[in-house]
Amino acid sequence: MDSEQLIQLGQQLRVDAVRAADAAQSGHPTSSMSAADLAAVLLGKHLRYDFDRPDHPGNDRLILSKGHASPLLYAMYRAAGAVGDEEFLTYRQRGSRLEGHPTPRLPWVDVATGSLGQGLPVGVGVALAGKRLDRAPYRVWVLSGDSEMAEGSVWEAVEHAAHEHLDNLILVIDVNRLGQRGPTRHEWDLGAYSRRLHAFGWHTIEVDGHDVEAVDAAFNEARSTTGRPTAVVARTHKGRGVAAVEDKEGMHGKPLKDAGSAIEELGGPRFVRVEVQKPAATLSSALLGTRGAALTLPKYEKGDEVATRNAYGEALAALGSARGDVVALDGEVSDSTRSQFFAKEHPDRFFECYIAEQQLVAAAVGMQTRGYVPYASSFAAFLTRAHDFVRMAAVSRAGINVVGSHAGVAIGEDGPSQMGLEDLAMFRAVHGSTVLYPCDANQTAKLVAAMAEGDAQSRGVRYLRTSRGAMPVLYGPDEEFPVGGSKLLRSGDDDKLTLLAAGVTVHEALRAADSLERDGVPVRVVDLYSVKPVDERAVQEAAERTGCLVTVEDHHSQGGLGDAVAEVFSDGRPAPRMVRLAVGNMPGSATEQEQLGAAGIDADSIVAAVKLLAEKVLVL
Amino acid sequence: MDSEQLIQLGQQLRVDAVRAADAAQSGHPTSSMSAADLAAVLLGKHLRYDFDRPDHPGNDRLILSKGHASPLLYAMYRAAGAVGDEEFLTYRQRGSRLEGHPTPRLPWVDVATGSLGQGLPVGVGVALAGKRLDRAPYRVWVLSGDSEMAEGSVWEAVEHAAHEHLDNLILVIDVNRLGQRGPTRHEWDLGAYSRRLHAFGWHTIEVDGHDVEAVDAAFNEARSTTGRPTAVVARTHKGRGVAAVEDKEGMHGKPLKDAGSAIEELGGPRFVRVEVQKPAATLSSALLGTRGAALTLPKYEKGDEVATRNAYGEALAALGSARGDVVALDGEVSDSTRSQFFAKEHPDRFFECYIAEQQLVAAAVGMQTRGYVPYASSFAAFLTRAHDFVRMAAVSRAGINVVGSHAGVAIGEDGPSQMGLEDLAMFRAVHGSTVLYPCDANQTAKLVAAMAEGDAQSRGVRYLRTSRGAMPVLYGPDEEFPVGGSKLLRSGDDDKLTLLAAGVTVHEALRAADSLERDGVPVRVVDLYSVKPVDERAVQEAAERTGCLVTVEDHHSQGGLGDAVAEVFSDGRPAPRMVRLAVGNMPGSATEQEQLGAAGIDADSIVAAVKLLAEKVLVL
Repeated sequence: MDSEQLIQLGQQLRVDAVRAADAAQSGHPTSSMSAADLAAVLLGKHLRYDFDRPDHPGNDRLILSKGHASPLLYAMYRAAGAVGDEEFLTYRQRGSRLEGHPTPRLPWVDVATGSLGQGLPVGVGVALAGKRLDRAPYRVWVLSGDSEMAEGSVWEAVEHAAHEHLDNLILVIDVNRLGQRGPTRHEWDLGAYSRRLHAFGWHTIEVDGHDVEAVDAAFNEARSTTGRPTAVVARTHKGRGVAAVEDKEGMHGKPLKDAGSAIEELGGPRFVRVEVQKPAATLSSALLGTRGAALTLPKYEKGDEVATRNAYGEALAALGSARGDVVALDGEVSDSTRSQFFAKEHPDRFFECYIAEQQLVAAAVGMQTRGYVPYASSFAAFLTRAHDFVRMAAVSRAGINVVGSHAGVAIGEDGPSQMGLEDLAMFRAVHGSTVLYPCDANQTAKLVAAMAEGDAQSRGVRYLRTSRGAMPVLYGPDEEFPVGGSKLLRSGDDDKLTLLAAGVTVHEALRAADSLERDGVPVRVVDLYSVKPVDERAVQEAAERTGCLVTVEDHHSQGGLGDAVAEVFSDGRPAPRMVRLAVGNMPGSATEQEQLGAAGIDADSIVAAVKLLAEKVLVL
Repeated sequence: MDSEQLIQLGQQLRVDAVRAADAAQSGHPTSSMSAADLAAVLLGKHLRYDFDRPDHPGNDRLILSKGHASPLLYAMYRAAGAVGDEEFLTYRQRGSRLEGHPTPRLPWVDVATGSLGQGLPVGVGVALAGKRLDRAPYRVWVLSGDSEMAEGSVWEAVEHAAHEHLDNLILVIDVNRLGQRGPTRHEWDLGAYSRRLHAFGWHTIEVDGHDVEAVDAAFNEARSTTGRPTAVVARTHKGRGVAAVEDKEGMHGKPLKDAGSAIEELGGPRFVRVEVQKPAATLSSALLGTRGAALTLPKYEKGDEVATRNAYGEALAALGSARGDVVALDGEVSDSTRSQFFAKEHPDRFFECYIAEQQLVAAAVGMQTRGYVPYASSFAAFLTRAHDFVRMAAVSRAGINVVGSHAGVAIGEDGPSQMGLEDLAMFRAVHGSTVLYPCDANQTAKLVAAMAEGDAQSRGVRYLRTSRGAMPVLYGPDEEFPVGGSKLLRSGDDDKLTLLAAGVTVHEALRAADSLERDGVPVRVVDLYSVKPVDERAVQEAAERTGCLVTVEDHHSQGGLGDAVAEVFSDGRPAPRMVRLAVGNMPGSATEQEQLGAAGIDADSIVAAVKLLAEKVLVL
């Protein structure tokens, strides 16, 4: 396309953005109009994409990090012939694929955006896959706003991209000077952005974002830059082309008042259909196809003392030998999470993300768009850093595995800053998530393998919680542990109540049950290793048989095991008596056993609570 | 102190770090040893601190961002005469104030550290208070590790500090080259750090961190630098002074094998008592003392349609007029959260944090250490970015108010990326938190005022959830809404069950109740505006009177209102029948009413669910 055609295409994208927001009477036309020329040049001359084959392995990737500018993206799809005008005007209506912010309900959208500062970190994940896994020449284009450059997640990504020499990653910053509530920190100081990016090792190009020839030259330069990622820092006007809104405050996120005259001012409606260039060749993943030997999980002897984090690392390494699509990422604590075992066996598929948990999860999200099965690990406590990325992974229909080690007060002396005591709540509340919390090495190994099953969407966000300390192996290596299952560990006809536990508290519950048995108070014990989905049938049966359920968990009492059990009785059927033993105090430093005792979740505390219940409460 | 004394003090700090970790048989001596000379020069020559008066308003502030180096901090306290040797050797023991990572159980620790990358953002908050609120000349010293420079939160803080010209903030980076599992990204490339910091507008000084004279000169230069913050980038050796561990991998986070010979190698035990210089004058806060007129909250007419976010902004502005210690912070969405109303009335106490939610919450944490009562607001969805800071705020015993707007599917067309559907779960699971969710403007105003009551520790983390759309005013302006209370909105002797709701679903529940009443199915309705603590008595009474509780919430079914109600029945007493109506699907774009309907939480859905219950379930 020549310059005049690109200019016309830019105007068409603007007109369409105005039309879409006008039809919806909501949306962000002005944020779309600033980036319209950038989008026109990209679509018309630089993007390599087969819209008929969004799964084409050679396709470039486009991530609209400023997801509120969705009308622009949808206008690009319209221009490319992928979306018809009738559908285009369903923007933001119920049932439409053209949501307020892009989601993978559209086949050309790999990841949902709309929480700012996520596009670049996820783009880094895709570019890493391209460079180190697929070893394919596709490029990753991220179109970002200027406001979102304030997000720390962006700078985690900037650092990571330079460190990995991701010259297949191009960041285009639409510097339109205006955020939501007013001017950005740096307004039109392009140098503020390029100085920072340059200091991190990026190639940077400053450009007038409305000069299509200059933008074209910048994109050419970006594409030919090697050894480092490039940022095109583009000066633009928000609301460009319509005097009533151009570069004016207070015009964010609303349809134009007089859409008709605005469209006229933009030169009227038109339809230039763009023949987007297709990728050169059919490339398939270098690694996805490789399958090793059949999966041989590590096996542990009953009675041996093994930390579940160790079993995680060993099982993951084994899984990596059987499947070429399994990758591991860690936040500079692989010696603690034990993902180092995978790193040692499969260094080409291990990604060190340093202490940057947002980038850690974002990279996993990016890689799963390319068909990989990522396991991202850090301390459970520090995964709270990535909460927004986990939340958005669900909106992205991403299939990622996240593993949090050092769960609960059981870590001992390090104290509360290192204890994951909110992680079950965080992961349970994520749409479509799975939450697993094993108590034993063989169980851990089986669950690690189960996390890789299914396609991305059926997987969703899967979380595995591991423990620091060694615990006795309870189960034989041939036992099965389906997701959604449980294990009945003690039961008898005279059980007074049921103890429901997971992870470290399973062992405490067993000790308590043995002691209570000796004292003439038999109790049932259930290992609820699958916290979500929880084994409803087993919980209901325990309620029917024993009438009282006592949950014991190394987690705050909100959002964890107690809530998971309570949720079983949320269908209006009669509920049993329930009691929660959970961490209610603020821990300090102490040994593991002191911590469990202080939190009231060790065997002695369980025994005392059960006796009190049996004597004072259950007789009422 | 002269150079020889400083060198000796550095060795003493090392010896003590080795001793503490040896006594505990756990901890991080090598990470302490790298920074010992930096700490010695700081303590001996630059810090202005009255250890007898940690609340002295003129005290400098020291934040040990690399909290795992706590033995170094405690050794400094010992050298300053604040901690005796007997207590010093209780490091990491149960009950000791000298926890594995520092917490405010020690009077000289303002904020807990140990989650890396938090010290600088919190320090920015303290420095902002010093410069813009206290207008006092104290300095904020942040001692940071090199690994944690990978955290995005650090770069949010770097940007913010430069933008606000915080020349009262000094960052000292202990570049010891080694992280937990191996070398850092930049190892000893000091320029990598200073180039980045310089690009963001900082003054930077590179120095040999073991040359006490050079460090002294650097600190002098930092203290005399005006107009911008300074970073002292110091090259150090991890484990410095003991050949067996110095600059060696695999020596992170463990006591030295042979502590005795290590101490000998360090020159043996000694005790130099440091007379730390005290602050020059007694300064008190410029603003804390100012009290305006008595609080006059905005009042709303029953039946008017007002969004609770509007009531938030108006009430906060009124509160700011009555109290000089109230400050507001926002993440570049003040036009949406309505904190702009406060900003307009009290610009000197409003802090624009741009799109950087970690820095937003960290600044609030920093300011409350100086006695201020911060209200930090953003979209509820985006507060997930700050989850780790909220978690650590609880460990810091901080009193902060956090306000999340645009809760739930009720926001309408913008779609799931903008919907807070996990926020109740996130805030409920925080230790000692309060969670409030008003349905009406007068209720909102009263709760905003209540959030400022009490001292920091009794306040804890308080969360208020507000809604985007206008809702009818239900309550008169003189009604009271105590934290932990509820409102009984409909009740009769024949109620078949109880609807428990909060926020937007209160209005849906009322509509449903009216419709059900007409159909001969009377129900009780309770407004549970206090989600945590929940009104246990009201919930129990509803259970006793009606036998069945139906919760209706604009939130995922995990961790929110349903869990809060279920938790009431976790003491072993008989539980009622319970049903949860919550958001179980993945929303798209739609209008507010369409969203509530699609999620099954609008009046029609409630009516249908109740009828089904009454006909099919409750008769069983």
